Amino acid sequence: MRTIETIAARKSYRGKYDAAPVPREELVQILEAGLRAPSGCNKQTTSLIAVDDPAVLAQLHAVIQPPIGETAPAMICVLTRRIIAYRDRTYYVQDYAAAIENMLLTITALGYDSCWIEGHVTDVDRIGDQMARILGVPEEYELVAFLPIGKAVEEAKLAKKLPLESRYSFNRFDM
Amino acid sequence: MRTIETIAARKSYRGKYDAAPVPREELVQILEAGLRAPSGCNKQTTSLIAVDDPAVLAQLHAVIQPPIGETAPAMICVLTRRIIAYRDRTYYVQDYAAAIENMLLTITALGYDSCWIEGHVTDVDRIGDQMARILGVPEEYELVAFLPIGKAVEEAKLAKKLPLESRYSFNRFDM
Repeated sequence: MRTIETIAARKSYRGKYDAAPVPREELVQILEAGLRAPSGCNKQTTSLIAVDDPAVLAQLHAVIQPPIGETAPAMICVLTRRIIAYRDRTYYVQDYAAAIENMLLTITALGYDSCWIEGHVTDVDRIGDQMARILGVPEEYELVAFLPIGKAVEEAKLAKKLPLESRYSFNRFDM
Repeated sequence: MRTIETIAARKSYRGKYDAAPVPREELVQILEAGLRAPSGCNKQTTSLIAVDDPAVLAQLHAVIQPPIGETAPAMICVLTRRIIAYRDRTYYVQDYAAAIENMLLTITALGYDSCWIEGHVTDVDRIGDQMARILGVPEEYELVAFLPIGKAVEEAKLAKKLPLESRYSFNRFDM
């Protein structure tokens, strides 16, 4: 799928998924696309865990309340380390966001659906920390988001956005 | 260019650029790709200014010290608003990072080179604020990054990264 078409086709899908497994080779393509994203001062602060074992998926979804993506046959959990880029500056949020966007595009290009789920797991109930314990994640990493992966069985729709031309201008602020 | 190949081919280019202008239609494709990125709670916090007027580029580069991307025939300046997504939570950093990644991939797919320049303009000398004043950007927006755009005249190299397989595992943390 061509890059520009993939970007235009990417959707945030919150419905039910087909149970068919995602082949490991495709999960590896998605993981590697994420890890090829740029990172501030090349600190490579993002790490990933792909989950396709139904028993582990069930353990994770038992703590993800309210449920989301619970019928997807795979998920990728996004881990970050708050590594200093220079002086007191960090770019780990930018780093994992770019990695997630690369993965969402690759998921779309491979014909799967997904959704960037972050606020749900990093809010005050700290669901991400419970997921990290289930996965044996060391203390210095933080689980900040996950992406369910599979084929949508309901209609996936593009988000409604402001007209794009109302959000850019040329050579000076004029929008 | 296919999505997965584009992701693998994207480079951070810091050298000199060919002076040939980037056609407006291609700049619009890049801007729209950025604005199609997802945003937390669909708050669409990112806005963009494309600069291709040589006089405006010269004004901007006069404040970008030390210089970077100063020979590029175009640049895109990235603006954000710290809009609350819900309660006290914001996702504007994730939002603009995803928009930047979409633009870097589109730039690559169209055969151009670029680099994500952020720390350079948001550091304590607040170069981004000076750029924003030149562009007439209102107070509620913050200029957080820019992307030079053009064709590299020197060799563009992939960043050296840790082996990708050292940054992911399946079903539990094992890396």
